[in-house]
Amino acid sequence: MEIRELARLTNEAFKEFLKIGNTKLKNKILLDIAKKIEEKKEFIIEENKKDLENGEKNNLSKALLDRLELNEKRINGMIKALEEIVALPDPVGKIYDMYVRPDGFKVGKMRVPIGVIGIIYEARPNVTIEAAALTLKSGNATILRGGSSAFYSNMALVSVIQEVLKENNVNQYLISYIETTDRKAVDELLVQDEYVHLIIPRGGEGLIRSVVEKSRIPVLKHYKGVCHVYVDDEADLDMALNIVINAKVQRPAVCNAMETLLVNKEVASKFLPIALKKLQELGVELRVDEKTKKFYSENVKDATEEDWYAEYLDLILAVKVVDDIDEAISHINKYGSAHTDSIITKNILKAHKFITEVDSSSVMVNASTRLSDGGVYGLGAEIGISTDRLHARGPMGLEELTTYKWIVYGEGHIRE
Amino acid sequence: MEIRELARLTNEAFKEFLKIGNTKLKNKILLDIAKKIEEKKEFIIEENKKDLENGEKNNLSKALLDRLELNEKRINGMIKALEEIVALPDPVGKIYDMYVRPDGFKVGKMRVPIGVIGIIYEARPNVTIEAAALTLKSGNATILRGGSSAFYSNMALVSVIQEVLKENNVNQYLISYIETTDRKAVDELLVQDEYVHLIIPRGGEGLIRSVVEKSRIPVLKHYKGVCHVYVDDEADLDMALNIVINAKVQRPAVCNAMETLLVNKEVASKFLPIALKKLQELGVELRVDEKTKKFYSENVKDATEEDWYAEYLDLILAVKVVDDIDEAISHINKYGSAHTDSIITKNILKAHKFITEVDSSSVMVNASTRLSDGGVYGLGAEIGISTDRLHARGPMGLEELTTYKWIVYGEGHIRE
Repeated sequence: MEIRELARLTNEAFKEFLKIGNTKLKNKILLDIAKKIEEKKEFIIEENKKDLENGEKNNLSKALLDRLELNEKRINGMIKALEEIVALPDPVGKIYDMYVRPDGFKVGKMRVPIGVIGIIYEARPNVTIEAAALTLKSGNATILRGGSSAFYSNMALVSVIQEVLKENNVNQYLISYIETTDRKAVDELLVQDEYVHLIIPRGGEGLIRSVVEKSRIPVLKHYKGVCHVYVDDEADLDMALNIVINAKVQRPAVCNAMETLLVNKEVASKFLPIALKKLQELGVELRVDEKTKKFYSENVKDATEEDWYAEYLDLILAVKVVDDIDEAISHINKYGSAHTDSIITKNILKAHKFITEVDSSSVMVNASTRLSDGGVYGLGAEIGISTDRLHARGPMGLEELTTYKWIVYGEGHIRE
Repeated sequence: MEIRELARLTNEAFKEFLKIGNTKLKNKILLDIAKKIEEKKEFIIEENKKDLENGEKNNLSKALLDRLELNEKRINGMIKALEEIVALPDPVGKIYDMYVRPDGFKVGKMRVPIGVIGIIYEARPNVTIEAAALTLKSGNATILRGGSSAFYSNMALVSVIQEVLKENNVNQYLISYIETTDRKAVDELLVQDEYVHLIIPRGGEGLIRSVVEKSRIPVLKHYKGVCHVYVDDEADLDMALNIVINAKVQRPAVCNAMETLLVNKEVASKFLPIALKKLQELGVELRVDEKTKKFYSENVKDATEEDWYAEYLDLILAVKVVDDIDEAISHINKYGSAHTDSIITKNILKAHKFITEVDSSSVMVNASTRLSDGGVYGLGAEIGISTDRLHARGPMGLEELTTYKWIVYGEGHIRE
């Protein structure tokens, strides 16, 4: 099918669902999908095997093959994710900021779905279920496009979803899938601004840059997470050590892990020897500036300008000694990626200054950057993270998949 | 100056102002601008005369010359607008949705400026002051580009603004102006996505379409206002008549005026003869469908398919008889422009159905579409209206010129 036609059908399905998609129906569909995944477990695992075999033929790395694999445990994980999304409150229809105007009519806002959302993602097939479930629960229609290496797995999951939609008398194009591995199909999707309202790309920086360049539709995304921890001269240094280690080591391959450590010069001699040694013991490679070397120089490399921009996603850390909080903030606003940055300090004035002046989507005081996550923030599941400035910043949950309309209740009110 | 350099300087000014731009300073600047406009009234009027003379030479229409003119009264209007914006609450820094997570750390959101906003507009020079004041009060930096016919007036006003910025030790590029009438400069601005975060075009559909096509930066806009009033079979017909006349006649040239009237067939024989006759008496030309002619046919024209899409901005009205509320909603969602639509009914179930299913940025019950306005809704001044789906819909005031960041206060919290 032509992509334009697929987009048109999905838009039509969205409009139909606007009328019938109440919370009860949405939750029933999600639970039915969970049930059918359980029933069709074997079929899904078989289809997944085709992808794994192709992946082996194509010499995919072990890590990628592992991400691709669907086994009993991962299928149960999908079922659990569906049940969790059912349990989340439905954001659609919420009326808020409603007040009576001096003339006596009421004005307020009501949350409504955004519309048709295109989601472009890479290897993991579980994203198919999670993305479909989150967009459905928020009343949107979706056009999914997963990685070509997961083609059979994704098609199996989408067939389950569409069967459930049909059984519930819902237009199956409410959750559409681009059924070709041709890359041109994505380019074609990105210009359907008449029918598609938002694009969310999830994957590596290359994928996302290519989507942004070609899209005529608004895109919500983050390129990378260059997260900082700044250890202030008034920090509790035990707390700082604990947070720094957690932010770097607990799960280094994710976007909210710390990539650069900034340390105030007043506490550098006390903090750096202990902290850097401990990090090395935990396997972290250090790339440090000249000043840092004065306090700790064992087995460290020299940091280059590129290191301050780097998202290592690995056990590597850039380290810099700064004169004061102003230098730390300037460094973060210049080299950071507006993802998540944290100050460790006991001084409330500095905490407020950092919160105000650091121009990132999540700014923290005395906490690990690893806390920057939809689940940890209490959004439930997250569809992605935005480092853009409009519509949504930081973790995006169900509410961020909605927009609002103004609603007015008059009693014959006119403009005088 | 190169547009890229102007954008870079404005972005720099934005970052500086993030640190110093508290409410007190912002209000002082706005009041200083008001004072200086008062002082420099004669200079401004003289510069405006150059535009008027050029306009006459270029055979501008009387209406355009009138919109261009700055006289004592209009200058006082600008001063009053500034004072009103000073009186509005500052949205920046507002902390909301803050809660304590089970682990004991606090998560919330804080409203922050969007960044650098490009505003592209046409004739009226007072937009220069209002747009600058609204973006400044919300902590943003602005790059203004007015119509070439108002060049001298706008330059005079911008010189006043920049003088005040300098007197307050604020980087004058916080409010920049593209000082050339070359159209290529606008195209150049629209690709500065590294420095500019949002574009707001204000003007005719042609201007806006051209901006959207060329922009690599997100654009908030409305193309047109094809607003509907649907008179339900359970409407209070006196109320309906009053609203219909107000929506069409009170100020027909604006985007929230009604362009199409939909009438339920059950009340058509009672409502149409009275309402259409009255509208004709008030000078309204009628373009009606076949069914309407059964009830009233005096001096009416036949509506064509284009009439249902038309924004007349004039004393012209398209009229259609519909079978029921479903046909009315389908018509609005198909032909409307997602601006403002209103149902007149006493039936609460139909009111809720209309509110839920009409997919417009403002949806009303028993009220005139003319109420769709930032001032009337209580936003204070409005920077524009959005019929887009992301970030802001409907009238946009100060709060819509801000975005948010997540803020987290921990006590040494880490990810377990």
